Amino acid sequence: MVKRTSLEDAPCPIARSLDTIGDWWSLLIIRDCFLGRRRFSEFQKSLGLAKNILAARLRTLVASGILEMTPASDGSAYQEYVLTPKGRGTFPILVALRQWGEEFSFEPGEVPTLLVDRKAHRPVRKLELRSASGRLLTQPDTEVVSNAGALRS
Amino acid sequence: MVKRTSLEDAPCPIARSLDTIGDWWSLLIIRDCFLGRRRFSEFQKSLGLAKNILAARLRTLVASGILEMTPASDGSAYQEYVLTPKGRGTFPILVALRQWGEEFSFEPGEVPTLLVDRKAHRPVRKLELRSASGRLLTQPDTEVVSNAGALRS
Repeated sequence: MVKRTSLEDAPCPIARSLDTIGDWWSLLIIRDCFLGRRRFSEFQKSLGLAKNILAARLRTLVASGILEMTPASDGSAYQEYVLTPKGRGTFPILVALRQWGEEFSFEPGEVPTLLVDRKAHRPVRKLELRSASGRLLTQPDTEVVSNAGALRS
Repeated sequence: MVKRTSLEDAPCPIARSLDTIGDWWSLLIIRDCFLGRRRFSEFQKSLGLAKNILAARLRTLVASGILEMTPASDGSAYQEYVLTPKGRGTFPILVALRQWGEEFSFEPGEVPTLLVDRKAHRPVRKLELRSASGRLLTQPDTEVVSNAGALRS
């Protein structure tokens, strides 16, 4: 893939996030980790992408502090990839992508998998954005403002 | 950019979403729309990308039903791009990307902009995932299961 402009130092937090994970395969590898996949061969089987591309994506994810390599959990010589706290922090991004996909890319009732609460075995609610005092917010209730504190410091 | 494998018909809702918006520029254009930008020249100034790439991305976003073109709001001959309901539905994705960026890609207090509640002028809470009954959930509280209803139908 053509090397893209770097947004690593962008002032916008969305742009910085996309600089790290704004890549199709990276987010699908992270999804696979949440689903319990840990090994190169498991990712390759799940994603069906070329070994050199998968190896490059895994290297980048490790370099970005999203995955770390550990010895295999079964004592074999394999290396495994596990999510770091920064990697696990992407969970709301994946949930938001899933919920948007469910709503706009499938016919009602056609979604083949559901995200459920382990205890009650019922689908989770849509992600909720709330004010500091707990009011539910939609996009028009919000705005992006300069962080004067950050600008002063 | 090299044409990627299509995930348009993938069974995973995350993969389908990424098929539509799993592209750096597309999400930044959508972000700009939420910030009130509507014209080709405004996107170009904000994003600094080549005109042909911007034109291609805008065409794709219109074709995907995320943006629609309308006559300029000031009565001039310009076309404007506005978010459709499907486009506005991406808001939680952008909020999740922002919050992850704030947490892992900036030093504390260094974030230049904040997402605030218009009424109280205070930063919003982190996105909350709740069970059907309202319990706050983290990733280990959840699992992805087959949607038997969908499989039967």
